[in-house]
Amino acid sequence: MAKDTITLMCASGCSPCWMVALALCEKEVEVTDYRELSYEKQEHKSAQVLAINPRGQLPAFKHGDIIVNNAMAICLYLESAFKSRGTQLIPDDIEEKAKMYQRFQEADTLRQKIGNVLFYDWMYPEEGHRSVFAVKRNSDLLSAEVQLWETYMPKTGSFLAGRNFTMADVCAFPCIAALVNYGLSQKKYPKIMSYYNDLKGKTSIAKTWPSFWINAPQGNTALKDI
Amino acid sequence: MAKDTITLMCASGCSPCWMVALALCEKEVEVTDYRELSYEKQEHKSAQVLAINPRGQLPAFKHGDIIVNNAMAICLYLESAFKSRGTQLIPDDIEEKAKMYQRFQEADTLRQKIGNVLFYDWMYPEEGHRSVFAVKRNSDLLSAEVQLWETYMPKTGSFLAGRNFTMADVCAFPCIAALVNYGLSQKKYPKIMSYYNDLKGKTSIAKTWPSFWINAPQGNTALKDI
Repeated sequence: MAKDTITLMCASGCSPCWMVALALCEKEVEVTDYRELSYEKQEHKSAQVLAINPRGQLPAFKHGDIIVNNAMAICLYLESAFKSRGTQLIPDDIEEKAKMYQRFQEADTLRQKIGNVLFYDWMYPEEGHRSVFAVKRNSDLLSAEVQLWETYMPKTGSFLAGRNFTMADVCAFPCIAALVNYGLSQKKYPKIMSYYNDLKGKTSIAKTWPSFWINAPQGNTALKDI
Repeated sequence: MAKDTITLMCASGCSPCWMVALALCEKEVEVTDYRELSYEKQEHKSAQVLAINPRGQLPAFKHGDIIVNNAMAICLYLESAFKSRGTQLIPDDIEEKAKMYQRFQEADTLRQKIGNVLFYDWMYPEEGHRSVFAVKRNSDLLSAEVQLWETYMPKTGSFLAGRNFTMADVCAFPCIAALVNYGLSQKKYPKIMSYYNDLKGKTSIAKTWPSFWINAPQGNTALKDI
């Protein structure tokens, strides 16, 4: 395979896929073979995905012969493989770098806690297998998580790790946008909402915005009471 | 605070704490203020932890005035802050680096799936809130995960990302050791067992081995049927 071939398989509306698309856009790296797949049609379990990602999950990513599939691993890889291209996503300053790594990894915690609430019924397709106690626990854990992120939010003009847009924003913004898309209370979380509003028009973010959300009927407010 | 002061609060037997202790040992960085705390005594919710880690979780880490608490973020930070000291935990070679980042992030998935099985009763302290369907699902997910890791295991003399011991091993070994400590089937997972046996005597690993496991009564086989 040509050294500069980049294959990316994604599903629209999937936060880890958005993280990767956003990192690629910031790094000004062109995807030569982009395939948008559908979870609904079970395409994440198709042979083309399994050939790259044995988990049968999206994203699935290949650069030349190098395969990386975990979204956060792909982001770290991209910064390293294309160090001098586009935006520098890992700051040089050690204090900013420390904060960046911390928020970057915590974004994954936020993502999972959102997933545990939004996808609970999908995880337990049989109604009789669902538990009100688990639903309550997942919801409480997400509330506590979002309250914590409310305290992490930067002032207008700043970003999660400091003065610059970094990998922390690349991985947290898609999660924050998911919260807002699913009806997060603007009154309860004004700082999260400001961060969202400040960043939603940024070129790389607007360019990679999931068509799934643009086209979806409005009014899914699954997270309004978080 | 002196620039080189390193505070680390840990609990023995906690995998993320072991990851950090192991990274510090490999980087030959001395912890100047080490505090071993007890989850049982709820010390992770004490003022000394909350002052550094608002999640009230362990590890809690401070280097001079720089605070990082997520174990994987601490590992990435340490490699950067002490680049020229001790073992190089992020390889230069781009292929090894890609594999390292992938396994490093996947170690967190393994850790969580182990936790969902081992700590289920702790998550749902009231017996009436527990669900046999959730227990079954958690167990099935862990089985699938461990089967995947069985395919990831390197040959004797190699490591998870290639020829060298890297950050991937730092974060995966404590999880692998947890599997073995809780009775993983040697017959079903011979490659995982080989990796464990090859690495358990490594100086940094032996030196940081949790006293909790050494002193615990043998025979907790909670993971024998995974």
